[in-house]
Amino acid sequence: MGCVQSFRQLCDRTKNTNVRLSLPAVCFVWQTAMIILFGIFIRYNEESDTHWIEYRREKNISSDSENDFYFRYPSFQDVHVMIFVGFGFLMTFLKRYSFGAVGFNFLIAAFGLQWALLMQGWFHSLDYTDGKIKIGVENLINADFCVAGCLIAYGAVLGKVSPVQLLVLTLFGITLFAVEEFIILDLIHAKDAGGSMVIHTFGGYYGLSISWMLYRPNLDQSSRLQGSVYHSDVFAMIGTLFLWMFWPSFNSAITDHGDGQHRAAINTYLALASTVLTTVAISSLFQKHGKLDMVHIQNSTLAGGVAVGTAAEFMLMPYGSLIVGFCCGIISTLGYIFLTPFMEKYLKIQDTCGIHNLHAMPGVIGGIVGAITAAAATETVYGKEGLINTFDFEGAFKDTVPTRQGGLQAAGLCVAICFGVGGGIIVGCILRLPIWGDPADDNCFDDEPYWELPEDEESIPPALHYNNHMHNKDLAESNFSMEQSTH
Amino acid sequence: MGCVQSFRQLCDRTKNTNVRLSLPAVCFVWQTAMIILFGIFIRYNEESDTHWIEYRREKNISSDSENDFYFRYPSFQDVHVMIFVGFGFLMTFLKRYSFGAVGFNFLIAAFGLQWALLMQGWFHSLDYTDGKIKIGVENLINADFCVAGCLIAYGAVLGKVSPVQLLVLTLFGITLFAVEEFIILDLIHAKDAGGSMVIHTFGGYYGLSISWMLYRPNLDQSSRLQGSVYHSDVFAMIGTLFLWMFWPSFNSAITDHGDGQHRAAINTYLALASTVLTTVAISSLFQKHGKLDMVHIQNSTLAGGVAVGTAAEFMLMPYGSLIVGFCCGIISTLGYIFLTPFMEKYLKIQDTCGIHNLHAMPGVIGGIVGAITAAAATETVYGKEGLINTFDFEGAFKDTVPTRQGGLQAAGLCVAICFGVGGGIIVGCILRLPIWGDPADDNCFDDEPYWELPEDEESIPPALHYNNHMHNKDLAESNFSMEQSTH
Amino acid sequence: MGCVQSFRQLCDRTKNTNVRLSLPAVCFVWQTAMIILFGIFIRYNEESDTHWIEYRREKNISSDSENDFYFRYPSFQDVHVMIFVGFGFLMTFLKRYSFGAVGFNFLIAAFGLQWALLMQGWFHSLDYTDGKIKIGVENLINADFCVAGCLIAYGAVLGKVSPVQLLVLTLFGITLFAVEEFIILDLIHAKDAGGSMVIHTFGGYYGLSISWMLYRPNLDQSSRLQGSVYHSDVFAMIGTLFLWMFWPSFNSAITDHGDGQHRAAINTYLALASTVLTTVAISSLFQKHGKLDMVHIQNSTLAGGVAVGTAAEFMLMPYGSLIVGFCCGIISTLGYIFLTPFMEKYLKIQDTCGIHNLHAMPGVIGGIVGAITAAAATETVYGKEGLINTFDFEGAFKDTVPTRQGGLQAAGLCVAICFGVGGGIIVGCILRLPIWGDPADDNCFDDEPYWELPEDEESIPPALHYNNHMHNKDLAESNFSMEQSTH
Repeated sequence: MGCVQSFRQLCDRTKNTNVRLSLPAVCFVWQTAMIILFGIFIRYNEESDTHWIEYRREKNISSDSENDFYFRYPSFQDVHVMIFVGFGFLMTFLKRYSFGAVGFNFLIAAFGLQWALLMQGWFHSLDYTDGKIKIGVENLINADFCVAGCLIAYGAVLGKVSPVQLLVLTLFGITLFAVEEFIILDLIHAKDAGGSMVIHTFGGYYGLSISWMLYRPNLDQSSRLQGSVYHSDVFAMIGTLFLWMFWPSFNSAITDHGDGQHRAAINTYLALASTVLTTVAISSLFQKHGKLDMVHIQNSTLAGGVAVGTAAEFMLMPYGSLIVGFCCGIISTLGYIFLTPFMEKYLKIQDTCGIHNLHAMPGVIGGIVGAITAAAATETVYGKEGLINTFDFEGAFKDTVPTRQGGLQAAGLCVAICFGVGGGIIVGCILRLPIWGDPADDNCFDDEPYWELPEDEESIPPALHYNNHMHNKDLAESNFSMEQSTH
Repeated sequence: MGCVQSFRQLCDRTKNTNVRLSLPAVCFVWQTAMIILFGIFIRYNEESDTHWIEYRREKNISSDSENDFYFRYPSFQDVHVMIFVGFGFLMTFLKRYSFGAVGFNFLIAAFGLQWALLMQGWFHSLDYTDGKIKIGVENLINADFCVAGCLIAYGAVLGKVSPVQLLVLTLFGITLFAVEEFIILDLIHAKDAGGSMVIHTFGGYYGLSISWMLYRPNLDQSSRLQGSVYHSDVFAMIGTLFLWMFWPSFNSAITDHGDGQHRAAINTYLALASTVLTTVAISSLFQKHGKLDMVHIQNSTLAGGVAVGTAAEFMLMPYGSLIVGFCCGIISTLGYIFLTPFMEKYLKIQDTCGIHNLHAMPGVIGGIVGAITAAAATETVYGKEGLINTFDFEGAFKDTVPTRQGGLQAAGLCVAICFGVGGGIIVGCILRLPIWGDPADDNCFDDEPYWELPEDEESIPPALHYNNHMHNKDLAESNFSMEQSTH
Repeated sequence: MGCVQSFRQLCDRTKNTNVRLSLPAVCFVWQTAMIILFGIFIRYNEESDTHWIEYRREKNISSDSENDFYFRYPSFQDVHVMIFVGFGFLMTFLKRYSFGAVGFNFLIAAFGLQWALLMQGWFHSLDYTDGKIKIGVENLINADFCVAGCLIAYGAVLGKVSPVQLLVLTLFGITLFAVEEFIILDLIHAKDAGGSMVIHTFGGYYGLSISWMLYRPNLDQSSRLQGSVYHSDVFAMIGTLFLWMFWPSFNSAITDHGDGQHRAAINTYLALASTVLTTVAISSLFQKHGKLDMVHIQNSTLAGGVAVGTAAEFMLMPYGSLIVGFCCGIISTLGYIFLTPFMEKYLKIQDTCGIHNLHAMPGVIGGIVGAITAAAATETVYGKEGLINTFDFEGAFKDTVPTRQGGLQAAGLCVAICFGVGGGIIVGCILRLPIWGDPADDNCFDDEPYWELPEDEESIPPALHYNNHMHNKDLAESNFSMEQSTH
């Protein structure tokens, strides 16, 4: 702790938010690198290549509708909406950070998905005959998933970092994700269709650890901007609702064709519905006069979708999904009320969007639910073939039994947490270096350092916006100069 | 009328909008009940169960793409967007009720769909061999449809009820819906793919009857908030457009595979396009200087989708769809201009969103169009098999002829109206009880009673917002205290 | 130039923005004409007709899932969202023209798609046995595409024209589009799946030519309104993101079943990702202090989708897509920084949304990329059958070779430019006639002439909004009268 402390102090210098060199440099160099690496490694797979017509005949595939595109593309588009509109708009709730929320989310997702196609490709889709990664629609979905992990982490540091830091966070985040995913899904052979462990637990702890490393003791200097205005809360509801509605597609996007996708969608749909009611209940119960808090409605209503991720394709049963959602709505909302202030005060973790309550905790719950459901699986419920199919008890794992699978699931959860915490601390160290152009403590949660802002006084009066302690004389002068400019 | 009047007076006591006990209690108890009932009754059907692989082999189904999931899931997701974003954002037009519009819509839809799965399941999907309801993607769509009826009713009472009242409205609404639907579709054997009768007519008259029972003679005390601001109108257009765009999916979601879904989508697409032009025409014609009114654009443009619901899967012909849309745009817009003020003044029906013009009237028109189209069906146009398939002239109904089907359709429409009006009056009585925490007459259309609001003076200056008749001295004082809080 | 100048002066009379007669008249007459023409010409095709069941048996089609509806409907809905939400909200960025942006977009798209079904139907879907146009889901997609061309043109004249002018622009635009499309795709036999040439190049130059004809030398009188406010920029990001996310569906919507759709989606996904990074880089590099400009993020990030349109279904290779996106992000952003001001100052082209940078230039690049990719196609890469399938080297074109196809592509591009420029000049002449109710130079970019506006002073103080030079006395009086109206 002492060394962390001194490292932190070492890195706190006068802040310069000018990213005019670093941001273009990073974008150009990395995008050029992507082009080169894609040129060397990435090709179409047999379902997206013009040779499909010959492949189809060869494999005796009866119809074009058997192309994986038609099984997965609608889900892919829903996931795509979640990544860009869902995550982007969910973070627009701050009164003066909507550009950063939706714009930087856009930037890092667009970079991340390219890097994810490479990283995940090397681990999962490498064709050893020619050394090429062969991609199709499932790779696009997985790339979006991979990006989701980094966007979750963005939630913890929202408003406190520069776009260059976010790109670095994404570069390392994707890399760690791909390794972690390979260990959990391939080596350990845990199942995680909706990514409770792989995406949410990892992404949550990755972000929290980074935020811990980037702790700002004087963040209250920006407290005037750390809240919402009426319309920014409505914008955030766009994000919430698109996440909520399309979560069934998220959890079912890469499950087995047929009953797998069907069941995962149903389970997620039910878990999310249940979460809404308990979120509302707790939000009302713990506020004076029983008023609802938009923060809870915007975030905790989604916790059920996170927690049902791992078990979505299992025979969780409809009532099981409802129970998972029921518990997560309660836990997540209580987290916002009690845990977030506690963590900021005592653990020095400043979690802007409360990702601990929305992703990390529900993700861990999801991992545990998955382990229990897997361990409790029986041939009576699943059917002989159903059991083998659902858990992929084939090849090297054909002798695995459900109880053992439960243990594997638990092991996977531990790996996700370790990668999240460990990776976050290392990347957090890197991000403390005084070269990234992050804002000063009194300049956080503000679009002003990184965006050309329109000249409107709509939301924040200038006195509040630029300087909380501006003298009346200055204010009068600024009004005067504005008058002059319009006349 | 006299007894209704005295009952109303009996229930008007001093209002207390604190729902800190009632709202959490209702949410917890009802959600727990859902879990228990789901545990007893609801299971996966053969297409979402792990036994699908065996079922598929048994039934000789050639491919996973024959799973109903792939026929209906894209439509389901579109319908889901309509329910949560469409209905939710359509109601955000009020300047200070956007949280309530989108938040309560979210709450009651999330509860309603669970209860709908049970209610509709008992009537339609009960497996008599084991007494379980077997659900798949079609059940999810139907649950969303069922919820739509209650959300329509919400439109009539928007801003005038508490969340607890809305949950009660939904509980009874879903119950009535499921019974009404069973009578219309199964007993009477009317067809209603897009729910012109079952959803819109029922939902419309249900909401209007409730609003009539909850008549507030002094609602003009809240008139300062019963309007829009610039940006709230733009938010409402999000709702309008997602409803408009996805209505073809709504009307085709549960029609027959193949040509049924295809034709229903085309008919709805055309009817809606036609409605837009006549709505614009009437809106411009009846306003001074020919200016367009956002209320009409937001609402009446959707009337064609409602009115083409029943006949969408019939051979309505493309020009037939255009004619239906043409008429509905005119009627609905005229309704907003003339009927809504008339109903408020003379019939004591306060219809916040004008659901009479958007749902009730177009729903009735849709029922009539359906009856005429069915009665006019011939083997020449439909083909022998086409006629049987489209109208399900099978089993007990194999001797039905088109003209008789037209009569059945008309009978279905009457049932929908009766259930709407009758159910609404009864539920309205219940909602008048002075226990639900609804706002006082001078406190309507305001998020303040039920939501923690951010401290911004963006849209409504405090003097207007909290008290229209506040003295200047008070205003000065409140400004003074605000100054203190920022320094 | 001299005669154009004098024609312009001839048409500049006192402006009257009252469209109370012209707008309803145009809407009613045109919609009635649509009904009559649809009655005469348009019928369901064999996949959306009740005879499908017999057709299916006759053609030995194994399953309903072979109905084109299931191959294309998800893409259609995505395209539909792009047309109505994407284009509509992208244009809401102006501080006081959001109603016009989203509302007129809605109006002209709803009219345009009907007229497009007819125009395209006569050229492409006419059944010569009975003289009827037979429509299915592919026709709906093509109608939406056709509308896109006109919506692009709307971007150039946004805020400067009346709704009647927009309807005229659409009527002629759709007509020209259908002819141009027939020449390019059928006569010349160029391929253009995503419409780089047919949609974007044509639409771009069509709009720019109209804007040139409608040049307003005194437009700076409206400069107070030609900018954004904070929340209008966030609204515009809704449009941007839905366009960005669903562009893979746009470019793949009408490509071949199977690998064609699959590959087009992948290529577009990658090109768009690449564009985001270079857009950010250039935007930051050319602004003082490295701040990002929302105009670039909202628009230039989409240029890659435009430019990859023609070649999306070819074997462009993943890295090829990245390169196209890389270049377009740079060119488009530089266009916003340097070309748009240049064009306004020296070429007298006022391009409100910068469609030259987002559609015209990237469209031309897309056409060139398509020509090169086609000319470079080999049997080694495509496979023998793949080459024939991808380029439709069948029937009259069975002897075409790739190099020749490259020439055909280039010819197609020239036709698109000619139709755009020529058609735009002619339609621009028509739109200058002083009968259309367009706003005066000091009244542009304002919803006030055509919309009933809510009485809020949220964004623009009244002094600025109604009259920039209003005296203080008037202002005081208007405040006084407002006070009276609230008391």
